[in-house]
Amino acid sequence: MSAYGPIADTDWIAVDWGTSSLRVWAVGRDGRVLAKAASQDGMGTLAPDGYEHALLKLAGSFLPDNPERPVPVVVCGMAGAKQAWTEAAYRAVPCEPVAAGQMMPVPTRDPRLSVSIVPGLCQMTPANVMRGEETQLAGLVSRLGAVDATVCMPGTHSKWVQLEAGRVASFSTFMTGELFAVISADTILCKTIAAQGEDREAFLGAVNEMLDNPGGLTGALFSVRAGALLTGLDGAAARSRLSGLLIGAELAATRAQWARRTVHLVGSGPLAEAYSVALESAGAKPVQEDAEALTLAGLAQVRGLMSRTIPRDKTQRLPRRLSERT
Amino acid sequence: MSAYGPIADTDWIAVDWGTSSLRVWAVGRDGRVLAKAASQDGMGTLAPDGYEHALLKLAGSFLPDNPERPVPVVVCGMAGAKQAWTEAAYRAVPCEPVAAGQMMPVPTRDPRLSVSIVPGLCQMTPANVMRGEETQLAGLVSRLGAVDATVCMPGTHSKWVQLEAGRVASFSTFMTGELFAVISADTILCKTIAAQGEDREAFLGAVNEMLDNPGGLTGALFSVRAGALLTGLDGAAARSRLSGLLIGAELAATRAQWARRTVHLVGSGPLAEAYSVALESAGAKPVQEDAEALTLAGLAQVRGLMSRTIPRDKTQRLPRRLSERT
Repeated sequence: MSAYGPIADTDWIAVDWGTSSLRVWAVGRDGRVLAKAASQDGMGTLAPDGYEHALLKLAGSFLPDNPERPVPVVVCGMAGAKQAWTEAAYRAVPCEPVAAGQMMPVPTRDPRLSVSIVPGLCQMTPANVMRGEETQLAGLVSRLGAVDATVCMPGTHSKWVQLEAGRVASFSTFMTGELFAVISADTILCKTIAAQGEDREAFLGAVNEMLDNPGGLTGALFSVRAGALLTGLDGAAARSRLSGLLIGAELAATRAQWARRTVHLVGSGPLAEAYSVALESAGAKPVQEDAEALTLAGLAQVRGLMSRTIPRDKTQRLPRRLSERT
Repeated sequence: MSAYGPIADTDWIAVDWGTSSLRVWAVGRDGRVLAKAASQDGMGTLAPDGYEHALLKLAGSFLPDNPERPVPVVVCGMAGAKQAWTEAAYRAVPCEPVAAGQMMPVPTRDPRLSVSIVPGLCQMTPANVMRGEETQLAGLVSRLGAVDATVCMPGTHSKWVQLEAGRVASFSTFMTGELFAVISADTILCKTIAAQGEDREAFLGAVNEMLDNPGGLTGALFSVRAGALLTGLDGAAARSRLSGLLIGAELAATRAQWARRTVHLVGSGPLAEAYSVALESAGAKPVQEDAEALTLAGLAQVRGLMSRTIPRDKTQRLPRRLSERT
């Protein structure tokens, strides 16, 4: 919850609505963040009619009591998924990360709010989707300009994105984080893997094993258990080995995108650090990017597009074909 | 539970003690199965002092009331694991599937029992272990003779075994079955995958995708979700696609063992059928083997070895180095 009182200077509110968390920022006329707050009211826990209440509970204090006009609230992430707040149908790549006239307006009961959701992106072949990352990509492009770049976004579902002239050309998704979670908690490996601790040598050894033998993953996973039984592989090394096998499998599959190149690595903390170490050791040039800063820059980009946009009734139309499908 | 009364003719008792189940057979002097029973008292649910009780509960009625001599009980599987009934330390490959003088005797309170556990096998490089499959391999070798052969044993942890002149030369383990279970139940894919149903075309398409691109597994997994969102991949097809991706990854990693060869496929039901279809479509010659028959033939092989074996005090010594480690 926010510790701030009503904030008279709020120009607009930035919202990142994930599956398991909700984060909000009050942004002033000069673009500075005046206040921020976060809660566990993620999309995974909410019914469609629960979103407005969850937003007001967290960000109500950011709103002036009697604003001259409704305060723009720009939302990225899973709030735009089917069966979430209001569906914002995917835009198909290749395309800009965000585009004028494509935001999805959301009706609200509170007259102080003017909510819009940023649509996610889809790729038809191979089938892929993202929600939220497009906004971080917009933030990155607003800083880098219309360049070609490789972007790696580690997480529950890691994304690898190819930018061409500032547009999203293609992307792929790896279930690396989620596989780590279920394999370490719910399979035979749970007997072997420590809850924490790390072993850099075991990690990099596993990354290299996967780079040398990309198809060896499901066999190598069991070797974590066998190694503990036969050679005394300890719990921290087993943990690092599992992480290295999964991240290594991801790097093996994306080699053409990072080999001898700069990789914009979006994230922070131990996970981004692990990707950075692995990429560097494999000959790439990772550049760490602050995920929160990119989200805010992307939402500001959207806010800018909206304030000079065409009338609302033209903005809410989305390509019929995709809209029906998703 | 058994529906049989005391069976006076029981010559010995065969036991397959898995992680989640216990199966027993009363075998007569002529080698015929006189009775059988099964329970859920697997190794996963028992403390070390619970095994004898679980065995008697299920197989007590197979024992004569006052046998002339203790009835041999030959046990394969997880009962010999560390922290199970009595540890039967792994034998290291290359070696025969089972060997005289290597069974682990287990002390019991009931004087009618003379229990021995068949040790599992280990491979030091790459690290790997099996418990139970060595007995099925012994059953297979007793029928095939001392041949070279490829054996595929699908399951929670699928094994691929290379037999050379009837000895186990090397083996590998794939967490295919366990990964299917946790990925379909506990990840984002659970929203997409039906509890049952199958789609042969989706299955074989996914198998071929992995054979063509063995490193693509963790990326292809997310495509099951994206395919459901974008192209209406239905629940049964999604289920078959996940199965095909995981089995395909296993086949891609073992290609040198099955390409244009006979594969002895140990198992039955839909899982063995899926492997059979995949292997045949990829140009191998799968021959289905009955798992229960092989287990019984292997345990009979062990029983035969024991009845003409050296004195017990010489039989319980195992290689010190492995015994200390495992």
